[in-house]
Amino acid sequence: MRAQQQRVGTALELALQLATPADTLLAAMQYATLNGGKRLRAMLVYATGEAFEAEPSALDSVACAVEMIHAYSLIHDDMPMMDNDDLRRGRPSCHKAFDESTALLAGDALQTLAFHHLSETALLAEQKLAMIRELAFQSGIMGMAGGQALDLQSVGSELDLTTLQQMHRLKTGALIEASVMMGVYCAPEVPAHTYPALRRYAAALGLAFQVQDDVLDVIADTQTLGKQQGADAARDKPTYPALLGLANAQDKAKDLIEEALTALAEIPVETQALAALARFVVQREF
Amino acid sequence: MRAQQQRVGTALELALQLATPADTLLAAMQYATLNGGKRLRAMLVYATGEAFEAEPSALDSVACAVEMIHAYSLIHDDMPMMDNDDLRRGRPSCHKAFDESTALLAGDALQTLAFHHLSETALLAEQKLAMIRELAFQSGIMGMAGGQALDLQSVGSELDLTTLQQMHRLKTGALIEASVMMGVYCAPEVPAHTYPALRRYAAALGLAFQVQDDVLDVIADTQTLGKQQGADAARDKPTYPALLGLANAQDKAKDLIEEALTALAEIPVETQALAALARFVVQREF
Repeated sequence: MRAQQQRVGTALELALQLATPADTLLAAMQYATLNGGKRLRAMLVYATGEAFEAEPSALDSVACAVEMIHAYSLIHDDMPMMDNDDLRRGRPSCHKAFDESTALLAGDALQTLAFHHLSETALLAEQKLAMIRELAFQSGIMGMAGGQALDLQSVGSELDLTTLQQMHRLKTGALIEASVMMGVYCAPEVPAHTYPALRRYAAALGLAFQVQDDVLDVIADTQTLGKQQGADAARDKPTYPALLGLANAQDKAKDLIEEALTALAEIPVETQALAALARFVVQREF
Repeated sequence: MRAQQQRVGTALELALQLATPADTLLAAMQYATLNGGKRLRAMLVYATGEAFEAEPSALDSVACAVEMIHAYSLIHDDMPMMDNDDLRRGRPSCHKAFDESTALLAGDALQTLAFHHLSETALLAEQKLAMIRELAFQSGIMGMAGGQALDLQSVGSELDLTTLQQMHRLKTGALIEASVMMGVYCAPEVPAHTYPALRRYAAALGLAFQVQDDVLDVIADTQTLGKQQGADAARDKPTYPALLGLANAQDKAKDLIEEALTALAEIPVETQALAALARFVVQREF
């Protein structure tokens, strides 16, 4: 896992070496992207792509695009009018290290760069288009951005489990699903009947990731987390532990991982790496 | 021209009819897009595409995508940490009509939707990819977003004409160039040797547009303009009238339009609509 984190880190560094007079903007984009996150989304691209024998260099490029979208969403999410988080991955968040206008533009330009990067990947036009369509759908109003809007609307209100789950499927799950499917689209040949199982794997893993995120916000400490512990409760955000209790939330995350592993069993290729990632999601401490 | 404004307006309305629980976000996206702008970028797509006999329905779709990118950039540009403009096209700007977090997400999601929309246009995969690559390049750090970052850096400082021009080529010119080229990519066959002349036309028109924008900020009134008159001077922004004097700036805009028309003369198809758009750019009053 560490090797793959390094691999996408190097690819991102290269992708962000641009000759531009807008040097502050570029520095902010680099700062927010090259900061050693978990790179879960990149690892999902690698794991799926490798399971179906995709070209490694294409996977690097696609992993970069997904991490750029993720980084853009974190920059904007941390800003004062959103979650107002000063800390991200143990360092000042982008609008703190730079300023709000630079952070706004850095998020904007990272989103654009993701699509540009995909359009230039060494794959067939049809493959690239399938990826652009998937990534745009899952990260826009029908996915991540829609989920963030629901999240904003929900602060201070009581959600039932179904509504909370719908919000998280969009906010976190959608981009995780895109990561898995983009790995698939990189591969030369994937039997179409495996798609539903892959999407089920991704959906369960994505939701487990969010449940574990809520759990960690309760039980971890700020230093391990790299962001403010207890931020959800302080903001009166609806969370799984708040709704189910801590122990039940932890069980829920484990059940979801079992669901993800069951889905994998239907896929007729070697899925050890995908299984390991599913387990990582609930075992992680940050 | 009015017919084409209506045409892209209708296409945008359709493109923004989405079934989503994030209804406030959707309303903000609609508010900021369906507000009767000049639609210059859409009209450039139509004029170029029609000159080279592109399919009308594909042009509608591409015109929508360009206007979505333009609308996203205006939403973010108006926000308090950027230009802090309360008025846009005679109505409260998006963050005033909604709130800052919704405006941020509306801009984000409009950008995403533009790429999604392009990926689903009824054209060949190669054509769509060429457009996505062009639009992403011209609207990202190497184009519009880069220009906005330079604009931010330049407030309160004295720029020479070359630097001012470089900033505007990125900030406004890049998306105008993308609009012209995307019209070209829609067409079934365009002689490659006409590309440089088309880009020269677009570059001259784009710069003329910005010079005229600066001129109007001095001579127009707020009501005609639909935004605060004198905003540039109040913000101590470097502008063409400030640098050259008003009369010289007006002459400069006219010279640039002549340059655009000269470039058109090299293109072996009917370019009357493109010529009319060039003249419109310096004759407009808002």
